Amino acid sequence: MRDVAIIGVGMHRFGELWDMSLRDLFLDAALTAIEDAGVERVDAMVVGCMSSGLFTEQEHLASLCADVLGMGPIPSARVESACASGALAVRSAFLEVASGMHDVVLAAGVEKMTDVTGDLATAALASAADQDCEAFHGVTFPGLYAMIARAYMERYGASSEQLAAVAVKNHENGALNPNAHFRNRISIEAVLGSMMVADPLRVFDCSPVSDGAAAAILCPLDRARDIARKTPVRIAGVAAATDSLALYRRDDVTRLKAVEASAKAALAMAKRTPEDVSLAEVHDCFTIAEVCVTEEIGFFERGKGAEAAAANLTARGGRIPINASGGLKAKGHPVGATGVAQIIELVHQLRGEAGERQIRDARVGLAQNMGGSGGSSVVHVLERV
Amino acid sequence: MRDVAIIGVGMHRFGELWDMSLRDLFLDAALTAIEDAGVERVDAMVVGCMSSGLFTEQEHLASLCADVLGMGPIPSARVESACASGALAVRSAFLEVASGMHDVVLAAGVEKMTDVTGDLATAALASAADQDCEAFHGVTFPGLYAMIARAYMERYGASSEQLAAVAVKNHENGALNPNAHFRNRISIEAVLGSMMVADPLRVFDCSPVSDGAAAAILCPLDRARDIARKTPVRIAGVAAATDSLALYRRDDVTRLKAVEASAKAALAMAKRTPEDVSLAEVHDCFTIAEVCVTEEIGFFERGKGAEAAAANLTARGGRIPINASGGLKAKGHPVGATGVAQIIELVHQLRGEAGERQIRDARVGLAQNMGGSGGSSVVHVLERV
Repeated sequence: MRDVAIIGVGMHRFGELWDMSLRDLFLDAALTAIEDAGVERVDAMVVGCMSSGLFTEQEHLASLCADVLGMGPIPSARVESACASGALAVRSAFLEVASGMHDVVLAAGVEKMTDVTGDLATAALASAADQDCEAFHGVTFPGLYAMIARAYMERYGASSEQLAAVAVKNHENGALNPNAHFRNRISIEAVLGSMMVADPLRVFDCSPVSDGAAAAILCPLDRARDIARKTPVRIAGVAAATDSLALYRRDDVTRLKAVEASAKAALAMAKRTPEDVSLAEVHDCFTIAEVCVTEEIGFFERGKGAEAAAANLTARGGRIPINASGGLKAKGHPVGATGVAQIIELVHQLRGEAGERQIRDARVGLAQNMGGSGGSSVVHVLERV
Repeated sequence: MRDVAIIGVGMHRFGELWDMSLRDLFLDAALTAIEDAGVERVDAMVVGCMSSGLFTEQEHLASLCADVLGMGPIPSARVESACASGALAVRSAFLEVASGMHDVVLAAGVEKMTDVTGDLATAALASAADQDCEAFHGVTFPGLYAMIARAYMERYGASSEQLAAVAVKNHENGALNPNAHFRNRISIEAVLGSMMVADPLRVFDCSPVSDGAAAAILCPLDRARDIARKTPVRIAGVAAATDSLALYRRDDVTRLKAVEASAKAALAMAKRTPEDVSLAEVHDCFTIAEVCVTEEIGFFERGKGAEAAAANLTARGGRIPINASGGLKAKGHPVGATGVAQIIELVHQLRGEAGERQIRDARVGLAQNMGGSGGSSVVHVLERV
């Protein structure tokens, strides 16, 4: 298997982007990544998108993207794993390069979510849950994560204040990110005073519905310095794992076993431990998700994640900075784009280009992207070359 | 890159399967393939499906499939390229094995299309066309292929009778296939007397809306004889290519350039020419599609494909047997499953297990699977080991 590097990244600012279509968003991110890499063309593409069908009535998306980019007839595949579609695209592009099938490969993630009414967006997102056993009966993602949060809080004595600390920290980081959907700082009081969505989760515990796109260019590591303009970043580890979609099929709803399995496998491939990681971007679709994920990766003991967030251990200057980009909570969550945007934050941090958000001595970054309520998880470990 | 073999295949009969859900169909095909291979488990999965979102409101499909198969937490990715999603799944599974990432990989294709009313099925399929430039304005796939057919007939003097010969031949083959949606023979007169859908295409020029699933097990060629129960079949060549979705963006609507590019690349990888191919399964979503595709692959000169079909050159005993399985026309076309089912027919033929449909001395098989009106194409070349 060939070693693989990321040599260029680009994204469009996340947000409610009324004047940008799905294809506009993709094109902007892809061109920025191509420019950043300094390449003239790519040999193949992978596009991650959760549901261009339900959000915009457009399937066959990867061919459309290759065409608007002027890259046809190159191979272009769409991949989907709900909200982990972006990271799955990077993993698929990794395999294109690692196998020797293609040399310069574009991995993109895109989602246009705001061209439907609120109810339709919620219904489209609910298609990431088990349709027959969950969504059909009316439960939506805030409800599913609320069940996880309630069980976690009861078992470990975690408080709403501790969960709120996750949102406060991510808005603090997002305020420094020009590509973030929300750039306002918030307080614990603001979170606790915000509208209840699904008890115990309030609206400030939830990531927003966003439009956005993100892209990265991959190539063989041994050719990266010849091909690229900037310092390459190595993909040292990558792994995906799955779990049942439906919560009722799990032994323990506070556990995200796909996260544990994917993190363990990606770190093993990279020959690293959680202690080696300088910073991580993780899937904080809800505050409780960030807490559980940081435990599953092994940054904190089980039941200690909420406490750790409240003690600022996950802040930019803390023991393990989590979501320096602002995370899904503040940077926004155009579901198919999120996993690629996490990779982009790591690349900027490892290159030392993160400006006010820069983590000192960032050498090893981990990105964890999740589908639904943990039905899939994809983890990448990136390293400075 | 490691050499890759197919060691097991299985499919559920295509048809209007009112008592089978999406997950039932997948499970049946996957278990049959696993049984055929003689393996106890798989290391990773890829599921091709065009639009489980629009047809059944279920995204995040690959994790769901891994769970119902009892294979979690293995990695499981969904891939989509409209009606070429099945072949794209086989190509993705090929990369999992070829790269060395995983050893025993399941590639499945599935589509449940009949649980919606006719209008909704047509609208869901139209999402494979360019939504902004074609589908929104009301054109559907019979209309798009009718434009291709009209241009082809005017340029090359092809007749409706010649196109009808494609449907007659494929029903003749489908009558011998126990897994086919339609097992009735039809006559030229029946085709020409059937209802007009989009002039010049009549209902018997069109493949049906079907439910179905198909699966294959891949592993490294050098381990195939140890792992598998039956004779392995080698994937000698595989390639994907894209074209614009919208017909108006093409220089010549009678050309399917993604088919040409993917066939050329797959044959080159296999070090074969069209003359080496013993039989081919090609994407006959409409009769005109089979005609154009056989020309793009290089079986016939441009403009001679319709005439060749009418002269029985593509019949089971002809110069190059096309769609011995019955093709999409008679075997049925559950869009995500089609590409995998094509591979299954080749495996049965190359193993000498095709019964009454067996092509003599089948040594090299080619499968061509297409998305939309040619916006994507994936070609595999399989060989007896």
